[in-house]
Amino acid sequence: MSWDENVVRYRRDLHRIPELGFQEHKTQAYLMERLTRLGLEPKPMGSTGLIADIVGRGPGPAIAIRADMDGLPLPEETELSFSSEHPGVMHACGHDGHMAIVLALAERLVEERRFDGTVRILFQPAEELPPGGALPMIEGGALEGIDEIYGLHLWASAPVGTVELRSGPMMANADLFTIRVKGLGGHGSAPQQTKDAVLIASQIVVNLQTIVSRRVRPFEPVVVTCGTIQGGHTFNIIAESAQVTGTVRTFSRSVQEQVIAEIRRMAERTAALYDASAEVEYVKGYPAVINHERQAGAWAEKLRGVVEVIEPEPDMGGEDFAYYLQHRPGAFLFVGAGQDQGESPPHHSPHFLINERALPIGAEVLYRAIHA
Amino acid sequence: MSWDENVVRYRRDLHRIPELGFQEHKTQAYLMERLTRLGLEPKPMGSTGLIADIVGRGPGPAIAIRADMDGLPLPEETELSFSSEHPGVMHACGHDGHMAIVLALAERLVEERRFDGTVRILFQPAEELPPGGALPMIEGGALEGIDEIYGLHLWASAPVGTVELRSGPMMANADLFTIRVKGLGGHGSAPQQTKDAVLIASQIVVNLQTIVSRRVRPFEPVVVTCGTIQGGHTFNIIAESAQVTGTVRTFSRSVQEQVIAEIRRMAERTAALYDASAEVEYVKGYPAVINHERQAGAWAEKLRGVVEVIEPEPDMGGEDFAYYLQHRPGAFLFVGAGQDQGESPPHHSPHFLINERALPIGAEVLYRAIHA
Amino acid sequence: MSWDENVVRYRRDLHRIPELGFQEHKTQAYLMERLTRLGLEPKPMGSTGLIADIVGRGPGPAIAIRADMDGLPLPEETELSFSSEHPGVMHACGHDGHMAIVLALAERLVEERRFDGTVRILFQPAEELPPGGALPMIEGGALEGIDEIYGLHLWASAPVGTVELRSGPMMANADLFTIRVKGLGGHGSAPQQTKDAVLIASQIVVNLQTIVSRRVRPFEPVVVTCGTIQGGHTFNIIAESAQVTGTVRTFSRSVQEQVIAEIRRMAERTAALYDASAEVEYVKGYPAVINHERQAGAWAEKLRGVVEVIEPEPDMGGEDFAYYLQHRPGAFLFVGAGQDQGESPPHHSPHFLINERALPIGAEVLYRAIHA
Amino acid sequence: MSWDENVVRYRRDLHRIPELGFQEHKTQAYLMERLTRLGLEPKPMGSTGLIADIVGRGPGPAIAIRADMDGLPLPEETELSFSSEHPGVMHACGHDGHMAIVLALAERLVEERRFDGTVRILFQPAEELPPGGALPMIEGGALEGIDEIYGLHLWASAPVGTVELRSGPMMANADLFTIRVKGLGGHGSAPQQTKDAVLIASQIVVNLQTIVSRRVRPFEPVVVTCGTIQGGHTFNIIAESAQVTGTVRTFSRSVQEQVIAEIRRMAERTAALYDASAEVEYVKGYPAVINHERQAGAWAEKLRGVVEVIEPEPDMGGEDFAYYLQHRPGAFLFVGAGQDQGESPPHHSPHFLINERALPIGAEVLYRAIHA
Repeated sequence: MSWDENVVRYRRDLHRIPELGFQEHKTQAYLMERLTRLGLEPKPMGSTGLIADIVGRGPGPAIAIRADMDGLPLPEETELSFSSEHPGVMHACGHDGHMAIVLALAERLVEERRFDGTVRILFQPAEELPPGGALPMIEGGALEGIDEIYGLHLWASAPVGTVELRSGPMMANADLFTIRVKGLGGHGSAPQQTKDAVLIASQIVVNLQTIVSRRVRPFEPVVVTCGTIQGGHTFNIIAESAQVTGTVRTFSRSVQEQVIAEIRRMAERTAALYDASAEVEYVKGYPAVINHERQAGAWAEKLRGVVEVIEPEPDMGGEDFAYYLQHRPGAFLFVGAGQDQGESPPHHSPHFLINERALPIGAEVLYRAIHA
Repeated sequence: MSWDENVVRYRRDLHRIPELGFQEHKTQAYLMERLTRLGLEPKPMGSTGLIADIVGRGPGPAIAIRADMDGLPLPEETELSFSSEHPGVMHACGHDGHMAIVLALAERLVEERRFDGTVRILFQPAEELPPGGALPMIEGGALEGIDEIYGLHLWASAPVGTVELRSGPMMANADLFTIRVKGLGGHGSAPQQTKDAVLIASQIVVNLQTIVSRRVRPFEPVVVTCGTIQGGHTFNIIAESAQVTGTVRTFSRSVQEQVIAEIRRMAERTAALYDASAEVEYVKGYPAVINHERQAGAWAEKLRGVVEVIEPEPDMGGEDFAYYLQHRPGAFLFVGAGQDQGESPPHHSPHFLINERALPIGAEVLYRAIHA
Repeated sequence: MSWDENVVRYRRDLHRIPELGFQEHKTQAYLMERLTRLGLEPKPMGSTGLIADIVGRGPGPAIAIRADMDGLPLPEETELSFSSEHPGVMHACGHDGHMAIVLALAERLVEERRFDGTVRILFQPAEELPPGGALPMIEGGALEGIDEIYGLHLWASAPVGTVELRSGPMMANADLFTIRVKGLGGHGSAPQQTKDAVLIASQIVVNLQTIVSRRVRPFEPVVVTCGTIQGGHTFNIIAESAQVTGTVRTFSRSVQEQVIAEIRRMAERTAALYDASAEVEYVKGYPAVINHERQAGAWAEKLRGVVEVIEPEPDMGGEDFAYYLQHRPGAFLFVGAGQDQGESPPHHSPHFLINERALPIGAEVLYRAIHA
Repeated sequence: MSWDENVVRYRRDLHRIPELGFQEHKTQAYLMERLTRLGLEPKPMGSTGLIADIVGRGPGPAIAIRADMDGLPLPEETELSFSSEHPGVMHACGHDGHMAIVLALAERLVEERRFDGTVRILFQPAEELPPGGALPMIEGGALEGIDEIYGLHLWASAPVGTVELRSGPMMANADLFTIRVKGLGGHGSAPQQTKDAVLIASQIVVNLQTIVSRRVRPFEPVVVTCGTIQGGHTFNIIAESAQVTGTVRTFSRSVQEQVIAEIRRMAERTAALYDASAEVEYVKGYPAVINHERQAGAWAEKLRGVVEVIEPEPDMGGEDFAYYLQHRPGAFLFVGAGQDQGESPPHHSPHFLINERALPIGAEVLYRAIHA
């Protein structure tokens, strides 16, 4: 079976068994087994992650290649024959493809052994779950002895055959907030005796819109998204409490701090409209992914002629690859994986699909990062 | 053990084992067993309900006495030693007390046998779950041969020693609605590619407030309550869909129809702000409880001197006792069960408490309905 | 010219010259002149009001009959040939008709002189402008020597030939509030440097809706209306300040106090969402009009056979006739003045129209209040 | 009197007599008189504007220098001794300074006559009033025979001694919208008979916030500001109609078109919540100011050493200087005019102040544009 066929096969195997962050047990086992078959000695790390070193033909730099492993808490709504076998969980962000690409790359590196130095294959759990799986890997020693690190993300909004890569800011800070509204419950027919937590939470969601529209500079790329809202137990009881969770994306520390203050104020004072209260728990997520200039530049150079290299705007999505780049030089890029025809469903949607033609390209892109 | 002690004991037994509508299996078994011990021949009816006839000393009218049986989907937050043993379910509306009262009444009727005619004890499931348990009971034959029917509700907002009773409209229509918002999901950092169902549902909740404030006559008692809101799977994915459920209380058919139309319009057009869609499912609940003039008047007469009889405003809460009164003459009243000191937590709150001193009073009130 | 024709003529004359409260100079002059022609000695009172006494054939009670005089700040949009000649001011509540009725009544009383005692004709300014024109009239001595007082309002939502009259609460408390939002102005392209008073005022209007929908008992007839909103000087400057004015209608003192507190809280805390401020000025308007039982009953009795007397719900509109009834026994009623066909435009609308067939009926209704 | 003193004196003279766009009659007269005294032959143009040519010492390029003339409809709230003498109108954007600078520049050019070619002084009305005064000037021939054009804006948010200048996009598209809500008016106590235009307009303002927060790409600098809201005639009448005006700032044609569509949808569908209607009138304002690369670069070069030249982000404010740059090469820059201590009140605020130390610097900056 060819190399290109393998990467597709691995991806489909993995697509069937999506697992949430730090629960990637089947995934870990699958990867361990594949790497062991190649003659490597994979080592579990960072809870459900693993690393494996491939030694080259002579002395040289130690380069790490990272793939993330986790799926998302979404019921899959594609019609794929290899759809998720885990109800409510789905590989809706392409991490299945990332792992397949790195597996295939490992296979090729082992076969060819045409590089000098060492390549460390690094499979990391829980990228979708801040504070994420990168820090446990780093604490586990994943970067020990490493000189440079590279990674990629399959990207549904870019066409197959393109790569997006820039020096400096590549992806945003990505934070998590939870707003807990505490009202006063009661019978659905007597609102005057209650403080309606469902109404309060709803007004908070509406009021938070004004942070982006009125409170931050128009040139500052900021997103405040309420991902979930939840309140009440049944239709005819006025809810005692309700909860909103969401994410904030920023590129600067000062704007991040401003938005935190605004969310707190909006939430607390909206609840105060009804003499109720709201608490905001704010978890600062991944810092911005900042590509190192030399590594990004060199990689872009190596890719010219192989794929079309585009210099994109920074992306609003967070990535814990950021942590690796705080410790080692390296770069991160997007590999175009959009559909050949029609619209590409967005990442994190239950209809998300990657174009499998992007898989061998992704492997080639990482291969070039390693080889001069 | 005295009569008064028994009613408290029964109530505490039942408080421990709250069950949701049509799942009152333990409750049914408990009541069957108690009634059988009294020498009666209880008969299951209406799924998890039951009836039992007590024959008096001579010929006379057949009078039905009804108690409702179900608890609510609320985690109990009282500190009672006999708190709910069923996680997430609670007797938070006093139905435990209603059953205890009717059990104690049956005991006394069997012992004394001082009435003429027949008394039918009627335990009905699922009062909290429209379309409710009354209709299945009626279809099962619960009113066959019956001349009149009476019932009561323990009432936390009235002091012990009072009873609220009026001719004509006693309780409101109580309906259920479900609004399903269908947006377009996507990555939390790219709202422009989505139609944010959490935001849309929140705006619907806010906009529905204007139905009562602007759309209905100020003299028309109307409540529109959103009991629950639910949307999204995780904090960093923009929700594809969201759902709001709630209840509407009205006293007139035409206002009910107007409010239905307004809810549909508000929901659909709020979604249309984002080119998304919303569907409203509206279940007409219990009709208004209309007490029959002669029966309500006679009962009030019999109660004077025993308790303080107050003529209240109609209540906004729905009750499927309404159906019995569409088929037979009778009346329904509230028995004061507020705390002796401090505030009485409202019905349907996780802190709900009845004053147990109201239990023997409730039994006496029903006893008087039967005896001349 | 007949009596019926005169009342229509007077009304049309007055309709042409609507004047705002306490500015009824032309109106006062018109009335003075008419009454003087009848041989009466009208006396200016209460700024732009007036009174005139008509002495009957023998000793008897002193009865006051009151009409209000002012128009509204509305540009008239009817197509009447006798439309307002005063731009931006309109008789859009029927006060022109009230004056015409009382003029015609005076005419008849003078001609016939069939009553005993005294009838005092009382034209009062500024009913639409709380604190209103009634108190200055009372302070001016309008009720001195008076035993009873009666008044009426032409009523577009009732058909000609009917009269609405009830004992006890007839019309609501009617208050005025002004909310002044103080934000921080600035260039329209830099919202982050400002506190947008237009947005804040808008959110206050939206948030005030929840007072009626959630904060007061469903059985309590309450209205909170924002009649005006005003903010900003030009499209591309973010407003430094904005203002909302409105009215509150209640029937009980305690609910009135609750609503005042809620408006203050909602306004201040909505502004606090943006660290801005809002001040609420609340002017308690007319108290509820409470008809005296004996006078209302007797009048109703006298009207039977003449018109259809309906016992209405209390009305939400305020009326400073309330003050007279705090000092003297009496009653106030509505005279049906709806269109014969099609819809009757509501009071205070620029399309408002009374049915002139109601004018002689109104005169007859007051005539009956005087005559046994 | 020195050159530096003159520029301050001219500015103060002009600050006293702010006039709205196309009403700059006194301003025009003042400028005509000053230029005439210099021996020039100013020529009225573009309604209330004017031009004057200054011929240099020998043949050379024809360079235009433009200043804008109009004030804003704001009551001045500074405590300046030379505050506006025109109630409700204020030079709150620094155009008084622009004119003073260009007057002083003209004076110096005439005195020194050290340049070759021609300099055309161009005073333009109505910059604040799209479609603005630039087009009438161009149609009047202001650019005939001109080779290049330069202009500046005093800038309160930059410190004195700095200049902000960039090639390419310098200032945003700036559009005007008007939303007219048509509801149904009526008595303040009967909302159910009306469609409350004040509430609808308020909800539109709130809903428009979601365009920036949810509908456009986070990287797209967009502002949607509602500058004014106006509805209702008096506190106790529910408004028949209301109006919102505002401005939109964008940098790309496609985003501009998207925002227009969103505003229309939001406005129309918010009104539809109440079966009312809303119409949006959208006037596309000034296009983006795009500095020509060669001219901007050369000017920056000449300024180095004289002031600190900063390359700013593009600004969100619109400027009809854009039109001149569509016809002739040239550039536009900002001259720092912030307060030496404390905060500088924002442009278009009633407290706006320029630092007069910026005035001679502004004149020097333009002088350099002309001289090699």
